[in-house]
Amino acid sequence: MTLTGNLLIGQRAVTGTQAAIHAINPATDTPLAPPYPGASAEHVAQACALAWAAFDEYRETPLEQRARFLDTIAEQIEALGDELIDRAHAETGLPKPRLLGERGRTCTQLRTFARVVRAGEWLDLRVDNALPERQPLPRPDLRQRQVALGPVAVFGASNFPLAFSVAGGDTASALAAGCPVVVKAHGAHPGTSELVGQAVARAVQQCELPAGVFSLLYGAGREVGIGLVSDPRIKAVGFTGSRSGGIALCQAAQARPEPIPVYAEMSSINPVLLFDAALQARGDALAHGFVASLTQGAGQFCTNPGLVIARQGPALERFIAAASAHLHQAVAQTMLTPGIASTYAKGVAALGDNHNTQTAASGLPAQGPSQCQTQLFVTSAQAFLSDPALQTEVFGAASLVVACDSDEQIGEIAEHLEGQLTATLHLDEADLDSARRLLPVLERKAGRLLVNGWPTGVEVCDAMVHGGPFPATSDARSTSVGTAAILRFLRPVCYQDFPEALLPQALQHGNPLGLRRLLDGQREG
Amino acid sequence: MTLTGNLLIGQRAVTGTQAAIHAINPATDTPLAPPYPGASAEHVAQACALAWAAFDEYRETPLEQRARFLDTIAEQIEALGDELIDRAHAETGLPKPRLLGERGRTCTQLRTFARVVRAGEWLDLRVDNALPERQPLPRPDLRQRQVALGPVAVFGASNFPLAFSVAGGDTASALAAGCPVVVKAHGAHPGTSELVGQAVARAVQQCELPAGVFSLLYGAGREVGIGLVSDPRIKAVGFTGSRSGGIALCQAAQARPEPIPVYAEMSSINPVLLFDAALQARGDALAHGFVASLTQGAGQFCTNPGLVIARQGPALERFIAAASAHLHQAVAQTMLTPGIASTYAKGVAALGDNHNTQTAASGLPAQGPSQCQTQLFVTSAQAFLSDPALQTEVFGAASLVVACDSDEQIGEIAEHLEGQLTATLHLDEADLDSARRLLPVLERKAGRLLVNGWPTGVEVCDAMVHGGPFPATSDARSTSVGTAAILRFLRPVCYQDFPEALLPQALQHGNPLGLRRLLDGQREG
Repeated sequence: MTLTGNLLIGQRAVTGTQAAIHAINPATDTPLAPPYPGASAEHVAQACALAWAAFDEYRETPLEQRARFLDTIAEQIEALGDELIDRAHAETGLPKPRLLGERGRTCTQLRTFARVVRAGEWLDLRVDNALPERQPLPRPDLRQRQVALGPVAVFGASNFPLAFSVAGGDTASALAAGCPVVVKAHGAHPGTSELVGQAVARAVQQCELPAGVFSLLYGAGREVGIGLVSDPRIKAVGFTGSRSGGIALCQAAQARPEPIPVYAEMSSINPVLLFDAALQARGDALAHGFVASLTQGAGQFCTNPGLVIARQGPALERFIAAASAHLHQAVAQTMLTPGIASTYAKGVAALGDNHNTQTAASGLPAQGPSQCQTQLFVTSAQAFLSDPALQTEVFGAASLVVACDSDEQIGEIAEHLEGQLTATLHLDEADLDSARRLLPVLERKAGRLLVNGWPTGVEVCDAMVHGGPFPATSDARSTSVGTAAILRFLRPVCYQDFPEALLPQALQHGNPLGLRRLLDGQREG
Repeated sequence: MTLTGNLLIGQRAVTGTQAAIHAINPATDTPLAPPYPGASAEHVAQACALAWAAFDEYRETPLEQRARFLDTIAEQIEALGDELIDRAHAETGLPKPRLLGERGRTCTQLRTFARVVRAGEWLDLRVDNALPERQPLPRPDLRQRQVALGPVAVFGASNFPLAFSVAGGDTASALAAGCPVVVKAHGAHPGTSELVGQAVARAVQQCELPAGVFSLLYGAGREVGIGLVSDPRIKAVGFTGSRSGGIALCQAAQARPEPIPVYAEMSSINPVLLFDAALQARGDALAHGFVASLTQGAGQFCTNPGLVIARQGPALERFIAAASAHLHQAVAQTMLTPGIASTYAKGVAALGDNHNTQTAASGLPAQGPSQCQTQLFVTSAQAFLSDPALQTEVFGAASLVVACDSDEQIGEIAEHLEGQLTATLHLDEADLDSARRLLPVLERKAGRLLVNGWPTGVEVCDAMVHGGPFPATSDARSTSVGTAAILRFLRPVCYQDFPEALLPQALQHGNPLGLRRLLDGQREG
């Protein structure tokens, strides 16, 4: 397969006409061919028009056909073989084993949504039969299903070139819901994006779906993204990235004549609370686990443990010492892009210069371009409560330990936190009461709470929540990982007194599709 | 019971300190005692602080206790007896039989949500058991439930002083979800609001709930409302009212450091499509039904049929003539407030003055203050497509017939419509194909589609959707009527590897509450 540098507007490969993006191998700081010229406003409009033209047909595809499409995308991605892994490795600096794992996760995710589509629970079918004899007024026949919102704009993420990008969770769940997708590729991995985009386009063709179900655009600045979000034919947005980027998209979406929902996953420092008994009993093991989680993938995870909260005292000192010892051995890793590496360097410099923090330990220094030197800082609860800068995410392998005077102060810190994707509790039996007192606060602050684990690693399953209150995401009511992600792209429609001939099949009398429905308040099927 | 004119801040009756609102009997244009002094910024803050203080306890009330609370509110409202109906009649001009029906609906709604709370399906419980042996990585134990968003600000609506006001659908569904509620009463019926507010406060006390679960505020301007929506302790908003009012609240909610969801039900003209065969076969009956729906309650329904779309020709002319004959007999009815009556008068004057419309018929002229003279206008499809003013809602008993050249033009009109709460199709067997072609457009435009009925009348049941794309509402993903309304005030939280002692009961092993859960992908319970 040859990389072309072309946009994919439906089934058409088109050369962009705007400033090109050039992938850079961050490990060597050298550009990678080909250049990817950016989409013009006209290209954005063409992709949106095609998506719109495809929408009514695609959203009514039989569940089996739509599921097969998702399965076919997974097959086509697998068929890309080593070329995909090699290119992604070159573009992102991520190790190949990690990329193999991520490819597996991406394909599992697509197949999981295929299973979800087939099961049809997301249709949330509700049937209230007519009650013609009811007094004082008869009840009409009322039936509800969920329908797709419309074409969705998806923004590829830098840190998961497969699982959160062109055919990642946002695309998979939007396609599962019946929404055509227009992807804006992340500028850091256009070649990976093109390969996956071609795989999706082949699946569209193979499954005989309308061409506009999928398009892929590139763009050097924010114009393509803002243009997409502002296009009247786009009805929802999926985004994983920075807080400023997410907020800009939210504002563009709200400024439209018809505002639309934006699902932006943005910023989280993922507090880890170390309770007394656990810290006493196994501080060393906790330090080991913490550093492993912190340094994994150069810390470039949304769920990276950027904050540790514990009571000060000898046990915390031992934990910091043990973590520092591990950290001193931590090899500097290549970050995704030179820009991310330089933002990281600025972030840790700001934490180091902050007169409220002390540097506890630094990892091994960089040996090549765009590498991330791991850093651990310590501060006091008082300082953390008074200085908002200490709560700002530093994307990469840096973390801050907050030493607290008392359980009450830990509670105060928890209450002071912004919204988070995760909150982690390390505890032993003797800590249960302290933990129980904190749970209500943590439930208000985070989408996922973990006990005695580490927040990196996000399972694709029914119960996962990868979401949380602002600024973790722009919409705490949703998750971007797991089967519930499909619910983001749906809205309910009610059919009153419809003749059988006009009812959608899923709502017809006798339940011909055999789907689970709420029938006069009772579960059917 | 004596009306006091006081705010209710939790269980405390407090006299407001800002400009007072005075109810006016619209039928006589005379003020009604007592005055209702407005809440200060301090009062708003007190109500929000109390709601916040109540939140963690209230959201964890056992389902049975919470359900009993909703049942008790219904009982307390019924116990208000005639005084409530008399006061609501005086404040709104609505006929007593209508208010008796609305009270019944309000209490049924509360009891319906009590049933919903008990059943617990809204918790959307999901359990994925650990897979310690899974390769390449074990799966942790993951459990998900829905938790309440936080205190909710509810705005009373002018047109349903009971069912969409202090203890209406927004309040009932928010309380059901576990959210404390701070209501801003509508200025048109403060006495009705106080009576119902006292009933809710008594239920709070009787059920031994924290005082902050419910507060009731008054305010003459927008300060109290904007203050509420801007308060950091408020986490969601329910509103039924004007487009400008709803948009102002959305903007205030988005301007917060932490944006919050706003469920604003705003503006809809509820198109009615008359298909050829139906129009031929029973134009007279359709005209009769149309005028009855149009004039019901002086047309003051969100779902009032403000637009009729049909093919021009003798059948449509007969329909217009028959509707006009009915309309000529339509008695002018008192509107809810002098302000609403004067806005209505301006709206119909603008339609009458529009050079693209003709007045088909007028109802009987006003005989008293604040009365609504029914009006029917006719325009061409071309004019409707080119003049956005013709798509503006006129709240009251006015409607516009759009005469089209062809089925294609009807499709163009449908595509041109803004988002709607409802779309109605009148059809016979011979119209099925034409209707089927239009359905995809109408599904994209409206939350509820009706066949051979009238949109006024919104059933409280599982399958109802009272919602729709912007500007019908600010969030097409939701409904403000029916049991699915509870879903607006929830967010998911995932618990990973939690010990039994820390898990919420609903998620514990063995399902001690016996609730329906998704267990490793299969339904349990």
